[in-house]
Amino acid sequence: MKKITIGLIGLGTVGAGVAKLIKSRRVYVRSKFGVDLELKTVCDLKVSAQVLKSLGKVKYTKDFNDILNDNEINVVVELIGGLNVAHTIIRTALQNGKHVVTANKAVISNFGRDLFRLAHEKQRSIYFESAVLAGVPIIKTLTEGIAGNQCSAIYGIVNGTCNYILTEMSQRGLSFAEAVRLAQEKGYAESDPTLDINGMDSAHKLAILVSLAMGKFVNVKQDIHTEGITHVSAEDLKYVDEMGLAIKLLAIAKKKDGAVEVRVHPTLISREHPLASVNNVYNAVLLEADALGDVLLVGKGAGQMTAASGVFSDLINLALDNDPTDRTWIGDSSEEIEKLDLKPVEEIETEFYIRLMVIDRPGVLSRITGILGECGISIASVTQKAVNKNSVVPLVMLTHTACEASVRKALEKISALKEVKARPVAIRVERL
Amino acid sequence: MKKITIGLIGLGTVGAGVAKLIKSRRVYVRSKFGVDLELKTVCDLKVSAQVLKSLGKVKYTKDFNDILNDNEINVVVELIGGLNVAHTIIRTALQNGKHVVTANKAVISNFGRDLFRLAHEKQRSIYFESAVLAGVPIIKTLTEGIAGNQCSAIYGIVNGTCNYILTEMSQRGLSFAEAVRLAQEKGYAESDPTLDINGMDSAHKLAILVSLAMGKFVNVKQDIHTEGITHVSAEDLKYVDEMGLAIKLLAIAKKKDGAVEVRVHPTLISREHPLASVNNVYNAVLLEADALGDVLLVGKGAGQMTAASGVFSDLINLALDNDPTDRTWIGDSSEEIEKLDLKPVEEIETEFYIRLMVIDRPGVLSRITGILGECGISIASVTQKAVNKNSVVPLVMLTHTACEASVRKALEKISALKEVKARPVAIRVERL
Repeated sequence: MKKITIGLIGLGTVGAGVAKLIKSRRVYVRSKFGVDLELKTVCDLKVSAQVLKSLGKVKYTKDFNDILNDNEINVVVELIGGLNVAHTIIRTALQNGKHVVTANKAVISNFGRDLFRLAHEKQRSIYFESAVLAGVPIIKTLTEGIAGNQCSAIYGIVNGTCNYILTEMSQRGLSFAEAVRLAQEKGYAESDPTLDINGMDSAHKLAILVSLAMGKFVNVKQDIHTEGITHVSAEDLKYVDEMGLAIKLLAIAKKKDGAVEVRVHPTLISREHPLASVNNVYNAVLLEADALGDVLLVGKGAGQMTAASGVFSDLINLALDNDPTDRTWIGDSSEEIEKLDLKPVEEIETEFYIRLMVIDRPGVLSRITGILGECGISIASVTQKAVNKNSVVPLVMLTHTACEASVRKALEKISALKEVKARPVAIRVERL
Repeated sequence: MKKITIGLIGLGTVGAGVAKLIKSRRVYVRSKFGVDLELKTVCDLKVSAQVLKSLGKVKYTKDFNDILNDNEINVVVELIGGLNVAHTIIRTALQNGKHVVTANKAVISNFGRDLFRLAHEKQRSIYFESAVLAGVPIIKTLTEGIAGNQCSAIYGIVNGTCNYILTEMSQRGLSFAEAVRLAQEKGYAESDPTLDINGMDSAHKLAILVSLAMGKFVNVKQDIHTEGITHVSAEDLKYVDEMGLAIKLLAIAKKKDGAVEVRVHPTLISREHPLASVNNVYNAVLLEADALGDVLLVGKGAGQMTAASGVFSDLINLALDNDPTDRTWIGDSSEEIEKLDLKPVEEIETEFYIRLMVIDRPGVLSRITGILGECGISIASVTQKAVNKNSVVPLVMLTHTACEASVRKALEKISALKEVKARPVAIRVERL
């Protein structure tokens, strides 16, 4: 029987879940898959007596070098999160000839290119199913499930915290602050939710997806236009709802004419589209694959056992896969048919929802539409949401497809009008 | 470089698509995956000159034995469909030491148990991703993507023809006959659509899913309670829409207390549930996995390249997988933790939508609700859909959870009332 001996670094929520699965399902995995998963050592700075007791004979250490230097251990599971220490652990594990399983999207998206080179050199594997959509097998789908396809587009709802907040705002009319507070109360948001709500977590995940689906390396900070959800207001959600639209924080990659655009921002989509019914902490990725067509995966993107499940599946698959394969790879792929450039954000074309707060006075609309026309932006609909002579009212518009740079220019000019009383709101619309 | 030499039997729509992918992407697959897929011979009784010409140097034969007896060919792709001839081809291929790739759900569900035993004995593999949900990787997900999970429930929209017909009836108010005709015009239904609309195609696919997800062999004809969509009426769809429900032909398996219920029937689900927005020819499978939680896959369930894509991915995966593994297996799994019995259909409990055509006369409702009460069925709502003294009006009810046997008994008694003027309509409701 094949056997792997595991050292687990990071015994937080997910780590404890993984340990529990390895222990409770060891007999089942032995008989069903013919492989033995032995958890030899766990490492964390602090572990509750209860968790430690539940692990039985497993060795406990506070020093991860005890795992990295143990010759009996051939698989290191990294679940401490964060960037630099985790990176060091993964790098050292590979250098010491060990396979790696991790759920760390920050490390994979930032350092994956070098780590996969190292793994290749050392003939070792890195598995990271839980880095995107937790245990929902999007990585497996991209690398094996739809093998031979090339993806022309990716649309992902990849952050459960944001999706929960936007769902609560849309369905119950909560303000952004109220929805954040509720998410924190329910344990769906950290006490400091910055990395979730500013879109960075989604950008990390998008970089991984783009590399796997399109063979294009993307630098998270430099290449991905990233906007968070902090400026989304309950008022706009009411108006977009009336238009049959739903709001999602989407991670988007689209390939066209040898270039790819990569961006994360609040996005309006038709309420009829299956992605629109992915609510609360659920996540989803929609792929447009050239032979297969659209394929959509939906599941919870977080939660102890949800994330632990992906790590556990990785361990079983790692034990069963005979050779470290090069099928999973972060970085530019020399083999892709199409060489891709990155499209500058200014050239991206979408429809826009625009809300202006204007003084309700004759001539205002004509001045605004005049500016839009000069900038080459064609208007699909305009609605004034109240009548209140000489007072400030919301003016809500949908544009036809327009270029980002033109919209920015137009909004700047419109902002300068004395009848426009607040910063214009602009939210991109995708017709999926 | 690893190489497989392929014989393709069945050059219909999907077969031609597979041949096209192998030919057009051979260089790409070589460089990306490091494997060479050579299509040596194709077989069909009739092939258009155009298709043949497009294949270039590939050998063409009318006799599949030319492929089965060719020692150079190590992978046989079976795409002729149907049951017995396809079964013979697959069995002979395995006996002759060849791996098999097929999209044939009828053969896999009916003969899979023996075929996988034979494959195991001969150390060969059977891949069949496209047998369920075409190229959407549900098989890969079950066998590898969520490895280590056990599924407690499966809900599948696995027949595109039925889903298209029900979508047209729901959204446009078409009658069943009109929707079938439209599906035929669009090429979504065969000229004889029996196997689709009677639910048998869905039952075949459900049997495969249950075997993979729950380790339980299911005999399609004996074990799966199968109802088609022929008795669904536009009138009922109007009423269920008013109740916030959508109709789908669902393939359902649910595990509880050591027993599993397996059934295919028109099912009402909440319009808010993501499955409800899987419309037209799209298919979907929702899995309830014990560690991971819910996971949903959605994609087109048919179409030339959609199905060809799954076969093509299978070929790449087969070429890369080093050993034939026993991870995919049709039949009872001796390794599952829980031994499962089949629950008799009479014991299944669901809510019901019931429509009766009754004479609008005092006392009728009390007689009907009296019978339901005697049978232990509790009513959630009753609505009379018109007022028309002494004439026949529809009476629409939703029950609370009730046992199948009780509902059948109650409806039989109700049918016998002289005020009830047509056969009662009963459609099961699932709260997902």
